[in-house]
Amino acid sequence: MRTAIIGAGALGLYYGARLQQGGEEVHFLLRRDYDAVMSHGLQVKSIDGDFHLPTVHGHRKTDTIGTVDLILIGLKTFDNDRIHSLIAPLVGPETTILTLQNGLGNEEYLAKQIPTGRILGGVAFLCANRGEPGTVQHLGQGALRIGPFCPEGANRCQKVADAFSRAGLTCEAVADLLKARWEKLIWNIPFNGLCALTGRDVTALLSDPPIRREITEMMIEVATAANAQQISTPIDTATFIARMLAVTDSMNHYQPSMMIDRANGRPLELESIYVEPLRRALAAEVATPRIELLHALLSLDEKKS
Amino acid sequence: MRTAIIGAGALGLYYGARLQQGGEEVHFLLRRDYDAVMSHGLQVKSIDGDFHLPTVHGHRKTDTIGTVDLILIGLKTFDNDRIHSLIAPLVGPETTILTLQNGLGNEEYLAKQIPTGRILGGVAFLCANRGEPGTVQHLGQGALRIGPFCPEGANRCQKVADAFSRAGLTCEAVADLLKARWEKLIWNIPFNGLCALTGRDVTALLSDPPIRREITEMMIEVATAANAQQISTPIDTATFIARMLAVTDSMNHYQPSMMIDRANGRPLELESIYVEPLRRALAAEVATPRIELLHALLSLDEKKS
Repeated sequence: MRTAIIGAGALGLYYGARLQQGGEEVHFLLRRDYDAVMSHGLQVKSIDGDFHLPTVHGHRKTDTIGTVDLILIGLKTFDNDRIHSLIAPLVGPETTILTLQNGLGNEEYLAKQIPTGRILGGVAFLCANRGEPGTVQHLGQGALRIGPFCPEGANRCQKVADAFSRAGLTCEAVADLLKARWEKLIWNIPFNGLCALTGRDVTALLSDPPIRREITEMMIEVATAANAQQISTPIDTATFIARMLAVTDSMNHYQPSMMIDRANGRPLELESIYVEPLRRALAAEVATPRIELLHALLSLDEKKS
Repeated sequence: MRTAIIGAGALGLYYGARLQQGGEEVHFLLRRDYDAVMSHGLQVKSIDGDFHLPTVHGHRKTDTIGTVDLILIGLKTFDNDRIHSLIAPLVGPETTILTLQNGLGNEEYLAKQIPTGRILGGVAFLCANRGEPGTVQHLGQGALRIGPFCPEGANRCQKVADAFSRAGLTCEAVADLLKARWEKLIWNIPFNGLCALTGRDVTALLSDPPIRREITEMMIEVATAANAQQISTPIDTATFIARMLAVTDSMNHYQPSMMIDRANGRPLELESIYVEPLRRALAAEVATPRIELLHALLSLDEKKS
């Protein structure tokens, strides 16, 4: 499965490295890491054991990659307007495209360019950060759940999930991608935003009882909005939230990407993680006061920079 | 009306200066401003015309003041535990005490020491900041609304209001102090907290449409909680909020005291402006999600400092 990784941040580098380690031919579009990777290969520092890929197919542009079987999109969603030109050289008549980007609206964006039956989406429960150029740090978790954008993509989705599993990744093919995306938002909406806004990591926030309560309440808002969408079966809100809190309690001072982006003055993924979910909650007449306030505060600071 | 001003921040200095200008004998408990005031008097830079009081009764301790007819409390509420010892030397058998402090719970605190019939409370719609030592800046507004803590204080309240009016202040005696306090909170809760949290003044916040909307929604939460209390007549929410927004639109880049306190690393008046109102809203089963989130965020940052 000839694969191109577009958007080689922590997520793209990590999953690409795992696929290559598992025997797949992987091509990385690189920017910051190009020189380091081409000179010294790609180093993965992982809680599951470090490994090094001495030779990596790195590219500065996608037209040197050519058509591939699978395009894996890990771009930040604020870069979505770059996707169409980036992937054009990669797309053959049978190419599958999998977006592991955060939030809602990403498959819809791809659908302007690619037949919907070839579009997959997925959510990554991955704690990873970029280290020095040429290095990615895998701090915890890592399971993938991927699903087809429309039902006709189900077989294609299963094949990709099987290939990922053969390569050693934990990857589940799910029928209801929309539900998986909303479940991920139950984590992303409180933690990405509150960590970015306050400059504090997940452990610092969860150890403060009033903020822990606000996180829980915000998760309830997301789950309520999710259950008002066209999803296959409702999310069991209390059980799911308890699990998310327990998992996050085990993340030792993890800094979500949005917190790191804010600290480095980069833009935030507000459109896909807040604006589009808020729009869909509003359409379903679900009240989301805490999410709205958090979004307004994050958005205000975006305008400062 | 021999008057002692306890808590000579911007509010205490301004109203004390006006009373002295109007012919009352006013004694100020001073800390930061003592040396400047005793050397050069008190300078008021006011939009209604600057004036200077060359001789001021300044004190470093209250026992040099002796008993007074009126004690005006302008202390920050996080200093409430200092009140009892500060006012002890001032209280005679007929002394009236008026707290112009922010939020809820201040009269109740005084009632541990003073008979309830002699306790008045009030709200100041005053835009003022301290300037250099010995100077107070009156930037706008200034009307007072004062009321008795319990009905038997009504006559006493009217006499104080009359004295204030004779001294040139705009002061209305109201029967329903609780309602006046909640009305003031409709302004304080969104603006004090959001300005402190974001480091932006009222004009900056109101000019951002999503934040303006959050301010409006938060005002609705406060007004709904207010109308669920034992107040005489309900607040007409839409009309009152429209008026508050219009008044604030006219405040040119005003920085509420909580914003200045935060910028200077001082504690915030969270107990009286957030905790006690939230407690009373909860008791009345009124939902206050935005206020809770704002309070949790402000409170988190308090723990940092």
